[in-house]
Amino acid sequence: MSDKFGIWLIGAWGGVSTTTVVGLASFQKQLAEQTGLVSALPKFADLQLATWDQFVVGGHEIRDTSYVDEARALHKTAGVFDRDDLDAIAPTLDEFNANVRTGTLLAVGSRIESLASDTARATAGESTSAAIARLSTDIREFRERHGLKHVVVVNLASTEPAVDSNIHELTWSELSTQLDRIEVPASTLYAIAAMQAGCSYVNFTPSVGSDLPALDEFAAESGSLHVGRDGKTGETLMKSVLAPMFADRHLKVMSWVGHNIFGNMDAEVLDDPANKANKVRSKDHLLTEILGYPPQSLVSIENIRSLGDWKTAWDHIHFQGFLNTKMALQFTWQGCDSLLAAPLVLDLVRFTEREWRRGGRSGVMSHLGSFFKSPMKCETPEFAKQYIQLEDWAVEVSAE
Amino acid sequence: MSDKFGIWLIGAWGGVSTTTVVGLASFQKQLAEQTGLVSALPKFADLQLATWDQFVVGGHEIRDTSYVDEARALHKTAGVFDRDDLDAIAPTLDEFNANVRTGTLLAVGSRIESLASDTARATAGESTSAAIARLSTDIREFRERHGLKHVVVVNLASTEPAVDSNIHELTWSELSTQLDRIEVPASTLYAIAAMQAGCSYVNFTPSVGSDLPALDEFAAESGSLHVGRDGKTGETLMKSVLAPMFADRHLKVMSWVGHNIFGNMDAEVLDDPANKANKVRSKDHLLTEILGYPPQSLVSIENIRSLGDWKTAWDHIHFQGFLNTKMALQFTWQGCDSLLAAPLVLDLVRFTEREWRRGGRSGVMSHLGSFFKSPMKCETPEFAKQYIQLEDWAVEVSAE
Amino acid sequence: MSDKFGIWLIGAWGGVSTTTVVGLASFQKQLAEQTGLVSALPKFADLQLATWDQFVVGGHEIRDTSYVDEARALHKTAGVFDRDDLDAIAPTLDEFNANVRTGTLLAVGSRIESLASDTARATAGESTSAAIARLSTDIREFRERHGLKHVVVVNLASTEPAVDSNIHELTWSELSTQLDRIEVPASTLYAIAAMQAGCSYVNFTPSVGSDLPALDEFAAESGSLHVGRDGKTGETLMKSVLAPMFADRHLKVMSWVGHNIFGNMDAEVLDDPANKANKVRSKDHLLTEILGYPPQSLVSIENIRSLGDWKTAWDHIHFQGFLNTKMALQFTWQGCDSLLAAPLVLDLVRFTEREWRRGGRSGVMSHLGSFFKSPMKCETPEFAKQYIQLEDWAVEVSAE
Amino acid sequence: MSDKFGIWLIGAWGGVSTTTVVGLASFQKQLAEQTGLVSALPKFADLQLATWDQFVVGGHEIRDTSYVDEARALHKTAGVFDRDDLDAIAPTLDEFNANVRTGTLLAVGSRIESLASDTARATAGESTSAAIARLSTDIREFRERHGLKHVVVVNLASTEPAVDSNIHELTWSELSTQLDRIEVPASTLYAIAAMQAGCSYVNFTPSVGSDLPALDEFAAESGSLHVGRDGKTGETLMKSVLAPMFADRHLKVMSWVGHNIFGNMDAEVLDDPANKANKVRSKDHLLTEILGYPPQSLVSIENIRSLGDWKTAWDHIHFQGFLNTKMALQFTWQGCDSLLAAPLVLDLVRFTEREWRRGGRSGVMSHLGSFFKSPMKCETPEFAKQYIQLEDWAVEVSAE
Repeated sequence: MSDKFGIWLIGAWGGVSTTTVVGLASFQKQLAEQTGLVSALPKFADLQLATWDQFVVGGHEIRDTSYVDEARALHKTAGVFDRDDLDAIAPTLDEFNANVRTGTLLAVGSRIESLASDTARATAGESTSAAIARLSTDIREFRERHGLKHVVVVNLASTEPAVDSNIHELTWSELSTQLDRIEVPASTLYAIAAMQAGCSYVNFTPSVGSDLPALDEFAAESGSLHVGRDGKTGETLMKSVLAPMFADRHLKVMSWVGHNIFGNMDAEVLDDPANKANKVRSKDHLLTEILGYPPQSLVSIENIRSLGDWKTAWDHIHFQGFLNTKMALQFTWQGCDSLLAAPLVLDLVRFTEREWRRGGRSGVMSHLGSFFKSPMKCETPEFAKQYIQLEDWAVEVSAE
Repeated sequence: MSDKFGIWLIGAWGGVSTTTVVGLASFQKQLAEQTGLVSALPKFADLQLATWDQFVVGGHEIRDTSYVDEARALHKTAGVFDRDDLDAIAPTLDEFNANVRTGTLLAVGSRIESLASDTARATAGESTSAAIARLSTDIREFRERHGLKHVVVVNLASTEPAVDSNIHELTWSELSTQLDRIEVPASTLYAIAAMQAGCSYVNFTPSVGSDLPALDEFAAESGSLHVGRDGKTGETLMKSVLAPMFADRHLKVMSWVGHNIFGNMDAEVLDDPANKANKVRSKDHLLTEILGYPPQSLVSIENIRSLGDWKTAWDHIHFQGFLNTKMALQFTWQGCDSLLAAPLVLDLVRFTEREWRRGGRSGVMSHLGSFFKSPMKCETPEFAKQYIQLEDWAVEVSAE
Repeated sequence: MSDKFGIWLIGAWGGVSTTTVVGLASFQKQLAEQTGLVSALPKFADLQLATWDQFVVGGHEIRDTSYVDEARALHKTAGVFDRDDLDAIAPTLDEFNANVRTGTLLAVGSRIESLASDTARATAGESTSAAIARLSTDIREFRERHGLKHVVVVNLASTEPAVDSNIHELTWSELSTQLDRIEVPASTLYAIAAMQAGCSYVNFTPSVGSDLPALDEFAAESGSLHVGRDGKTGETLMKSVLAPMFADRHLKVMSWVGHNIFGNMDAEVLDDPANKANKVRSKDHLLTEILGYPPQSLVSIENIRSLGDWKTAWDHIHFQGFLNTKMALQFTWQGCDSLLAAPLVLDLVRFTEREWRRGGRSGVMSHLGSFFKSPMKCETPEFAKQYIQLEDWAVEVSAE
Repeated sequence: MSDKFGIWLIGAWGGVSTTTVVGLASFQKQLAEQTGLVSALPKFADLQLATWDQFVVGGHEIRDTSYVDEARALHKTAGVFDRDDLDAIAPTLDEFNANVRTGTLLAVGSRIESLASDTARATAGESTSAAIARLSTDIREFRERHGLKHVVVVNLASTEPAVDSNIHELTWSELSTQLDRIEVPASTLYAIAAMQAGCSYVNFTPSVGSDLPALDEFAAESGSLHVGRDGKTGETLMKSVLAPMFADRHLKVMSWVGHNIFGNMDAEVLDDPANKANKVRSKDHLLTEILGYPPQSLVSIENIRSLGDWKTAWDHIHFQGFLNTKMALQFTWQGCDSLLAAPLVLDLVRFTEREWRRGGRSGVMSHLGSFFKSPMKCETPEFAKQYIQLEDWAVEVSAE
């Protein structure tokens, strides 16, 4: 058997996926340094993580485009990537492109539906269980065709609208038998398909994914590793770093206002209030957890087209210090969203594959909490403490 | 014997000292909440720290003013303190006022000298050893007059100019015998006086204080606790919180520019380049320690009179992420310096007294590193990790 | 006859009114400098404007409080005013207080209604024409009681909800005969009452006031001066100063995002979407007028209680320069709203009285456009050009 | 005779020059829109300005490089220009390249000298009068070779150090006869050469250029048009737009701190304090002129290499409003210096050529004051009023 591993991206041709693939292909051609990759830090050198040339990419997508087109568009509009490098990796991108299959439009909401290709629309009428079976088969075939030891499925699709059902209260046997009768979030369908196919599942979006008691049961049953929810790349990363400072110094945060502006496809999708609700919730719970009391807090996200993938976040933190003195901290974060997210996707794939390689483990990988805005089964909302959990895990695994 | 403790402030009528005393007196009269006090957090409740009414204040000063005058001036110019509360605590301030004695002008530099009262100037000609003896006697008399169990001496004086001598290479026996022949930093004179008097010594300023091999020896010999250097209140606190985020995420900091503007007496003193050098050095070493490489870094401090005690710091952090993408974080910190520093002074006094109460301990209290810009004998520059050392200490002491 | 003039404030005990009265009383007692007053600039010295001791204050209000209480509350929460000065002017404030009468709750919307005193609620059931007659009588009695030569009525009440009627299409004879059958904005009732009483009318709020064809007719008929709409104090002032720079330099504004946070009673009222609509509209039309094309623009206003009267506005301007290069300007404005507005109220009163003194004039005072976000009959949206109109007027009047 | 005009750039291969040439060539090939060009605004359409294909470029330079190399480097490091466009205009750039001649190293200072090519160094020993003659001949030959009707010489060279001589007090006959005995600023040598050759002269830098009584005399004598000093592109543009707002509203500016960071060759040169002095002076006088009093003001310029041509300026304006209330405005300007400057260079060339075409005029073109930080013979420091002078000129010229 080969020593290859698969990365299966849900939302395969989106901005984060494209950037992930551009990065991977660049590393395979040794064209770029590994800045931004947590897994490339010296402290993780003893883990014997998989190397870049061990990875093959495939995925599900509902739009009609390609890695090369998307990468060139990002280069043009956001000024990222080196054009000579893009030319050099185009053959690799085309190879990965051939592994992309049609996703499902079930429960993605009208905003995302409006972006769908004719091929994706042609799946209309498919039952939920049929969709899961199809998605699962796509991944299995990918694994077999490339002789992959293991595949990590990563959800990078646009944020889905909240589902109005009692799905959080169902057991796995209830959920699995009612699939065609209740509304199941799109992201959950992919999670089920991944686990059915024997893959690990990483949810990098605010969508539900595997964050359900039923899915936790199924992960145990199927021996699957999973982790999520919502990659922590910008403003929320800052919150999980700064809020502990206020708590530790007993400075009382009276209000924390965060105003996010950007204009990529994510912003487009979040312009639909149904999709935005999931996102804002994921960004907002953190402060109360860290501070121990709820400051007045406000998170707004606005679609400003001229900014494209460059997210600008302005945060105003109004706090009370000694003898009731009011003080303020403001910050402006100017980052390119896809470029912040993509290295974390590669990190999560490598760390997940490494955990899988240990053998005999399943369930939530809570030591990866530092990567997520709403980490599953992670009691620790402070970034620094979450990161120590990752370091401790690395020490433990390296010693095995 | 009483259950009283003393706080002896060097620079007794300066802004931080005055605010410390206003805070303490307000707590003694139960006029204010304890926001801003680390030691008042629930996690330190089991330490059985000294209570506010156990403390008496005295100090050394070279200017001619009073707590009431300085507190009213701060209220007027910076808009801090409640005026009714100031009226209510005036009698307490006057009592503490009576405990202030004349400091020394030796080695303070011409800028600080220019602020001195006639009384302080009258000490001109005093030898270094005579000055130490006088300062030490002042503290002893304070302790005896008030029947204090222990006195914590805290250096809050303006930043002194760097001393041009080989003092860092001397042993205690060399230093103590050459006192009248070499230039000894003013802050070190007070540290020696404090240890001679059997007190603990806290250096909240960038001045040298006890941060010398010789003083470390003397601390061991005299059984003194000490700690320092340079209270971490604003921009540097932010650095020690934010820089680890960049390091942990493998984001490469290309440049970090910090521009500080404020206009209190500290700023006035720092307008003298000799005094400023010590300060900038203390703010600047941190990044290299945390990041593991030196980004281009620049710290400027400007005396802008209209701002008074309200320090505004603008920091611009330019960093490189995935695939060489350049991104930026800017922050503006608007804090009132004295109000940020004063609660930490009270915290340090309480934590120091508690360590002294354990008995039989001497030397640097490295578990207090989170309070300082340049913590003595603390290997950990990251705020979050420094803070864990404090929490661990508290668990250990609480269990005793 | 005396040489006294009256200032009649609608929303008499609100933050701006209170600050206006504190300022006026302070000038009458010669306690303060005239910073912030346009009319006190040397270039307007030849106008022979009325002096501070010539003014007496009265007004309409629907809440139950007093100048002294409101002024002390502002001092306490926002840190403005000198407390000794407040004590010194308390008797004057009390005199003015005695001139405040009960306003009307007609058409103010449920949010403002909820703030009303019992006295104000007792006017429920009053017809529109009866309300106007009552309000008009209040002003006449004030003028007669104090022997005032002229009264300037200034609307400083909270922003009213938009009225859903065809009122913009009515002539004065239609409007005046249908008063009790259609919905008339609250601010318009006061404008009619003012003109009926022979007063000048200044609308410092985004509410409709006299900005109607019918009222313009009535102003001509009754010989009344009027002007408005929405005092230009902070973010919009900045827009009318900065947008011309982009236009003049042919830099293309792609997007302009303005995020306003503050927490005074105005913010409370604007939390009701019905009231906010009028406000946002008034802040937003400007850019298109100045630039000649509509950039993507977004104005948000959020009620952040901890900020009180201190409005913080963050604006992000994304613009395109030479060869499609994208650049950005951000600003943060931190101003105390009432303190920015109040001097302009005094300026408008003095300039209006001066125009009235010229004699024989009526209608909109378009030379006062620089004071307003949505200036009536002012073709010029650029601040600098509006200001030149004021200077030109001053030269003309001074020469008379 | 042809209808061609020449643009002669001093510092011909620097960032601003290169961008100017890239822009011009792009317009000649109709590859770009005219955003950023003042002269392309509809209000200047009736002036019948020269069209892009009428211009030919040449210049003086002391470094050894080329337009194509410099343009590609800017594209690579600053992310500006479209690479396909650069390829398309390469032939034009190469043509212009052939018109570049060797400048002089006289009086440029050691920092600029260190950048010089061997060819430039080979001119060492040349007397001042010989240098002027050589430079003048270069320009004449350029004019003749291309059959140009008129040539506009634009100084875009790096800022020179201040000259320590009484040159400001000399008449033209004194200066012209002492050229080889006194130190004459480099920029002045070029200005003399330009006027001797019958050209117009534009000084876009803070260097002295033609801003001397002697040169003014020589301009009159030789019938030359000239204008300057120091293109107003970023922070100072903002100052000349914002300071009038504070003045007009009688808000007292207590302090204005401006902190500029960038890392291009200009920044490199300004790292030498001798060169920086001229620059800071040019940025700083403005506030006092506009406000009528000197606020505490501070301008710092730092060479931060990672920023390249992207200048970031943070300004903090602390002002006092009504009743002594202190408020603040901060702004952050993020602009690409060369891209802000280059269109203004093209504007100045077109407006200067148009003035020359009117015939019979010489001396300072004071109606171009809005383009400069330190406009010669312009009494009006406010941007809006300077701009009205340009508009008035355009109306006058269009009517001829």
